[in-house]
Amino acid sequence: MEREILEIIRKRKSVRKFSDRTISDVQIKTLLEAGQQAPSVRNGQPWQYIVIKNQENKRALSALKGSWHPLSQSAVGLCMFVDLQEYPSTHKEFFAQDCAAATENILLTAAAMGIGSLWMGVYPNVTLEMAVKNILKVPAEKTVFNLIALGYETENERKAHRKEPIIYWECYGRSQ
Amino acid sequence: MEREILEIIRKRKSVRKFSDRTISDVQIKTLLEAGQQAPSVRNGQPWQYIVIKNQENKRALSALKGSWHPLSQSAVGLCMFVDLQEYPSTHKEFFAQDCAAATENILLTAAAMGIGSLWMGVYPNVTLEMAVKNILKVPAEKTVFNLIALGYETENERKAHRKEPIIYWECYGRSQ
Repeated sequence: MEREILEIIRKRKSVRKFSDRTISDVQIKTLLEAGQQAPSVRNGQPWQYIVIKNQENKRALSALKGSWHPLSQSAVGLCMFVDLQEYPSTHKEFFAQDCAAATENILLTAAAMGIGSLWMGVYPNVTLEMAVKNILKVPAEKTVFNLIALGYETENERKAHRKEPIIYWECYGRSQ
Repeated sequence: MEREILEIIRKRKSVRKFSDRTISDVQIKTLLEAGQQAPSVRNGQPWQYIVIKNQENKRALSALKGSWHPLSQSAVGLCMFVDLQEYPSTHKEFFAQDCAAATENILLTAAAMGIGSLWMGVYPNVTLEMAVKNILKVPAEKTVFNLIALGYETENERKAHRKEPIIYWECYGRSQ
């Protein structure tokens, strides 16, 4: 399995140009089931989702930030949000890490299915969050974590360059 | 590839009982290269690593928190940290999401290699962070994100139950 996971992990990249090929509800549910398998503090699984296929909503969301324009062309948008009121107070501070792990599961599964994706951060930008909530009718007490654009890419976009990992051994500053 | 990624994602779980089987430096570098492939804000790749094989350091770290006891039995500990001074100020707030995505890549790659793992959150617990920094000689201006214990499991530990994903369609509160 090592070869396969590395291939998928290397293949995943930010995609910004989507074709008009659609994504089925079965595919969407597979992606969200993959998100559910992520680790979370005390297995709290805090994430909830809104699936956005409506063109009007995708366009309205994409207009909120310059770099979000790919969302308007995507087949499906996802909004990941949490209800921190349901979260034990000692673990609230970890919810963004939980949601990020779930997001990575979704993006990797999409890559494995040949579906391109773009992670658009919302939390902790409160202004952006309020605008997203307004469009998607998310109650004030919820916390929006991010948006994810999904779709098939139209051209083979290049993955951004990765540098070599910076690694120390046993303690900070010590090389191997 | 869809079948393989779902199998790996479902297989990944928190492992707390490790055998004394070792993990090679080649395996460690493969895991960190997988982490490097994660998405990050503006491709900042903020994560850096300390690899901990020294038993004394693993034991000292494991003593910092009750739930960290598995680290003392693990083959290798990883400490992920960042230097927020090098980070553009507008993107500082996203570093924990970047690091969480890189962590998930590492955990999934470990699972695919048959290696068990445990994610131990540090950030934003400042008291815990200072204690970790002290043991690993991490300079004050760096920010420790988490510790990861890696090793082969001794028994087939159960993965914690996953609930069904909570999904709304088009806007909050609307079922399919």
